Amino acid sequence: MSCFYLDLLKIKDPSFMKQLDIQELEALAADIRAFLITSTSKSGGHIGPNLGVVELTIALHYTFNSPNDKFIWDVGHQSYVHKILTGRASQFDTLRQHGGLDGFPKRKESIHDVFETGHSSTSLSAAVGMVIARDIKKEDFYVIPIIGDGALTGGMAFEALNHIGDMGKDMIVILNDNDMSIAPNVGALHNVLGKLRTSNTFQQTKTNIDKLMRKIPTAGEKLADTAEKAKDGIKHLLVEGTFFEELGFMYLGPIDGHNLEDVITNLEIAKRTKGPVLLHIITKKGKGYQPAELDSRGTWHGTGPYKVETGSFIKPAKTVASWSSVISNELMRLAANDERIVAITPAMPVGSKLEKFAKTFPERFFDVGIAEQHATTMAAGLATQAMKPFLAIYSTFLQRAYDQLVHDVCRQKLNVVIGIDRAGLVGADGETHQGIFDISFLNSIPNMIITMPKDEEEARQLMDTAFAYDDGPFAIRYPRGNGPGKELSESSKLIPIGEWETIIQPVDAVILTFGPTLEQALKAAEQLEDLGQRVGVINARFIKPLDEALLHRIFKQKIPILTVEESLLKGGFGASVLEFMEENNYTDVTIHRIGLPDEFIGHGSVPLILESYGISPTGIVLKINEMLAQSE
Amino acid sequence: MSCFYLDLLKIKDPSFMKQLDIQELEALAADIRAFLITSTSKSGGHIGPNLGVVELTIALHYTFNSPNDKFIWDVGHQSYVHKILTGRASQFDTLRQHGGLDGFPKRKESIHDVFETGHSSTSLSAAVGMVIARDIKKEDFYVIPIIGDGALTGGMAFEALNHIGDMGKDMIVILNDNDMSIAPNVGALHNVLGKLRTSNTFQQTKTNIDKLMRKIPTAGEKLADTAEKAKDGIKHLLVEGTFFEELGFMYLGPIDGHNLEDVITNLEIAKRTKGPVLLHIITKKGKGYQPAELDSRGTWHGTGPYKVETGSFIKPAKTVASWSSVISNELMRLAANDERIVAITPAMPVGSKLEKFAKTFPERFFDVGIAEQHATTMAAGLATQAMKPFLAIYSTFLQRAYDQLVHDVCRQKLNVVIGIDRAGLVGADGETHQGIFDISFLNSIPNMIITMPKDEEEARQLMDTAFAYDDGPFAIRYPRGNGPGKELSESSKLIPIGEWETIIQPVDAVILTFGPTLEQALKAAEQLEDLGQRVGVINARFIKPLDEALLHRIFKQKIPILTVEESLLKGGFGASVLEFMEENNYTDVTIHRIGLPDEFIGHGSVPLILESYGISPTGIVLKINEMLAQSE
Repeated sequence: MSCFYLDLLKIKDPSFMKQLDIQELEALAADIRAFLITSTSKSGGHIGPNLGVVELTIALHYTFNSPNDKFIWDVGHQSYVHKILTGRASQFDTLRQHGGLDGFPKRKESIHDVFETGHSSTSLSAAVGMVIARDIKKEDFYVIPIIGDGALTGGMAFEALNHIGDMGKDMIVILNDNDMSIAPNVGALHNVLGKLRTSNTFQQTKTNIDKLMRKIPTAGEKLADTAEKAKDGIKHLLVEGTFFEELGFMYLGPIDGHNLEDVITNLEIAKRTKGPVLLHIITKKGKGYQPAELDSRGTWHGTGPYKVETGSFIKPAKTVASWSSVISNELMRLAANDERIVAITPAMPVGSKLEKFAKTFPERFFDVGIAEQHATTMAAGLATQAMKPFLAIYSTFLQRAYDQLVHDVCRQKLNVVIGIDRAGLVGADGETHQGIFDISFLNSIPNMIITMPKDEEEARQLMDTAFAYDDGPFAIRYPRGNGPGKELSESSKLIPIGEWETIIQPVDAVILTFGPTLEQALKAAEQLEDLGQRVGVINARFIKPLDEALLHRIFKQKIPILTVEESLLKGGFGASVLEFMEENNYTDVTIHRIGLPDEFIGHGSVPLILESYGISPTGIVLKINEMLAQSE
Repeated sequence: MSCFYLDLLKIKDPSFMKQLDIQELEALAADIRAFLITSTSKSGGHIGPNLGVVELTIALHYTFNSPNDKFIWDVGHQSYVHKILTGRASQFDTLRQHGGLDGFPKRKESIHDVFETGHSSTSLSAAVGMVIARDIKKEDFYVIPIIGDGALTGGMAFEALNHIGDMGKDMIVILNDNDMSIAPNVGALHNVLGKLRTSNTFQQTKTNIDKLMRKIPTAGEKLADTAEKAKDGIKHLLVEGTFFEELGFMYLGPIDGHNLEDVITNLEIAKRTKGPVLLHIITKKGKGYQPAELDSRGTWHGTGPYKVETGSFIKPAKTVASWSSVISNELMRLAANDERIVAITPAMPVGSKLEKFAKTFPERFFDVGIAEQHATTMAAGLATQAMKPFLAIYSTFLQRAYDQLVHDVCRQKLNVVIGIDRAGLVGADGETHQGIFDISFLNSIPNMIITMPKDEEEARQLMDTAFAYDDGPFAIRYPRGNGPGKELSESSKLIPIGEWETIIQPVDAVILTFGPTLEQALKAAEQLEDLGQRVGVINARFIKPLDEALLHRIFKQKIPILTVEESLLKGGFGASVLEFMEENNYTDVTIHRIGLPDEFIGHGSVPLILESYGISPTGIVLKINEMLAQSE
């Protein structure tokens, strides 16, 4: 099993593979699998998707010549094998750590990463750009987007299919069909694929072969050879894939994605085919590691460290519930008494902790697949009929629904409650997944209410307030991970819209903040008290609208004001306070903001990143002292 | 022809139609057509799409009971006939004017407008929300989204189809296929529809009828009656619509959308069918008015006033070119010398004035249909291959590509030039089409450069600067309509990134502005000069990055600073100046902002709207005087 194992760390580029035969490639696959399991058991990472594409990735690098030929990994969390084969195995002990190997393709990491991904369904559009560039420049290379069946439900993937099929340029689309998004896949397209998947795998119709033959260039010995192979019909699989063929693709499949020979043979056919080809490759998430293979919920999609022998996760003893759970529990409680409440998730039932809701209220739960735009406007449609939709969506994916928020939800002032999960920094997933834009892009949408709770109790109160509110959309942001562990009191209460909470009365200066940075502000205030500074702390749980009455009182105190947020400064909460100042003619106040700068923020430990931008008790103390000195 | 003509103005609701027979309905259609032509010849409006749906709309209101049954008009510019039949004919003389009838469905206008539209491809998602609400509440009504073949290419429509087909709930989707978006339609789906359209229209296969019969509930006389009709096979048309059937729909069509009897018969069948049905209705844009019928470019999609007899447009003598033309001409000039330049439009070749480019450089022009997300990431793909894509996109539609801008373009710092057309207020199209969000949502995206020219000459310089720039994305905003008419000088020049232009040296106060409001600032400065105030005017043509050197000089002058923008104040240009002030510790400066408030802005004359928010010479003079008085 380990003829190559020790050598994985020494791989410089994929050229060594060209000399290998099928048996050797299979041995390489086994080695990579062992390496992936060992490595991610220590670092954590997207083990499930990567175990599923070991053979596929080997076959791609064997058949094509990267980086001249371009692989575009849709979503990109399945690029570990590609990273190993392109010389990055030795960096896997730093995977997803600050300054270490990224969990997604990164152009600065390798010339083999030709397009960076993270969000779903972008690969086909990027591929269109590349084939157009190739043909204009009269260059000669293959463009190969690798997209999952889950990602295919994202609307922009369809926009691209529509273009590719019509344009007719050469492109090889790999449909990596594992029957899952992160959770089990949904939708009519999923049914289409299901039919294709279960069609007689080894059936070959004369018609299809003939059709294929006509598309294969006849000139040249090598091509004829391939044609011969196709006619011999070794094991490559052709059935009519009506859906894709109607859209203008040559369909090849279904192909067993764990049979290296099959995959390579079909890739060879695709290489020789003119126009757009779609290879329907059937893979299994977690292939070769039993705990991951047996997973049907998506638990093994991405994990923290685990014990290889048992498949049990190594986690710090968890004493408190995740933010998602807190929100979801309250949603359940509310839904039990209000039939108008429904929950919508775009493919994140597990991450958003909605599985229990789905079981309890199956008629009122909707996993729409990777389809944030649809999810949002569907919520708007529900709200027009006096329903109370709860849209659970990660901050970073809400970006996909910006126009639907503006145009369908906020403009019509519809009562949609938006649970913005993973708001703020997310850590290991990095640049593409940070939830740091939502305040900036929501702030300027009229009628939008944006809130963030300081603890579990307040999360519950904001949920209750949101569902009691009947004058438009209401967003509640909450971070990834666990809350501070505040026990819920016996009864909840509603919070008046826009009302902030004064936690420490301001005397010499004041800190305005919300959510997880409130704790930092309190720590800072404590340290400042020891220095003799009486610094107030305000829980600005409504990011929009601001508590104008309280702000007027503060500005009239003429004390230094510091805003703190785990979010972009540009257009953020602090910026709103600056706007308030201007609108109300306050000119002689010292005001400063702490938050994230105008740049993309990479992966790494959240506390470390926060500290580096002064979003910490130390950073706050420093800034307040600076301001107090300045205003003296 | 005019048995009803005089009565159109008296229609209160569609109930009167139930008593009419086919001949009377046809007469009504003729009357409505005459009314539409006469009316829009005076007011302007979306004449083409509305002439195309006269029979369809009559058939819908005849067959269903609005507002209990819900019609959702995708895009909504084709809702005039619906407005007439629901009692709004008498308001057509105010169409698209300030305070007058809206050109799109508006819930506050009528209980028959159940969902507001404007942007494309939202109707199916809204319909999903409504059928879910209906079934949870155990109510009984039909939900009927009416979507064009153009709108169907928008990704979110596919996300919804995917959900509808899988969910299997009762819904009647009307596919209004006129073979056009605004311009002729494109894409593989268009080819699918083309095949369906040209399939033998009167062919009826036994299989299909049988399949249909099985879906029709057998109980009840009325139903049996309908089943009989279907079997009699009068003229309703059934052919296999593989694409939609694969997605889980019962396909009915193609149906001649101008044959009232056919449309009604098929709607009746759809009513009796369980599960999702798709009616493929073939219509002709501009039907019944020759100049509009003969239009193949999309000129008659939406128009200003015209002469009914000749079809010639009544326009003020046009002496200068539109902003879109200026940009497009410069793009042509640049593209002639640089093969890397390609142009991309999401379905707006005419509006963006790219027809000439398309003719001159057919290999480098891409109309991708209504697909803003794909257009944007495709541009990113091109840029990775050292191409120089120009993405021409209306400000309001760029909202659809927010995530693609963040995640694919800006994060990878790719050289995509974005021509943001229709930036600022657009007038008659109103609320859904105002280009007033882009600065706010682009401002907080790292690596983004945002500019706006003051005149044609500067537009050209900014285009040249954008294509010379090689360190990331570069956006140029320009308004709807014509520029000030500045003659181009013999040679262009590049503008250093971030460099503003001082037009009047500031002494007592200063105005910072850009684009069309610069002229207003100059007029204001002139008036102020007459009052003895020497007010500077700065052309802040870079909205991001700011000209920090110049800003430091201004802030150090300690004079009142006024920012003016035809855009949202929240997160806008003025907000950036406030952020600069905070970042650089300027506290004792009087600063104010003029711009649009935190609300949606309805339709009407642009100067009128601007004046109402003080975005005018008068408004500026007032504000500056106020600030000067305050700072004394």
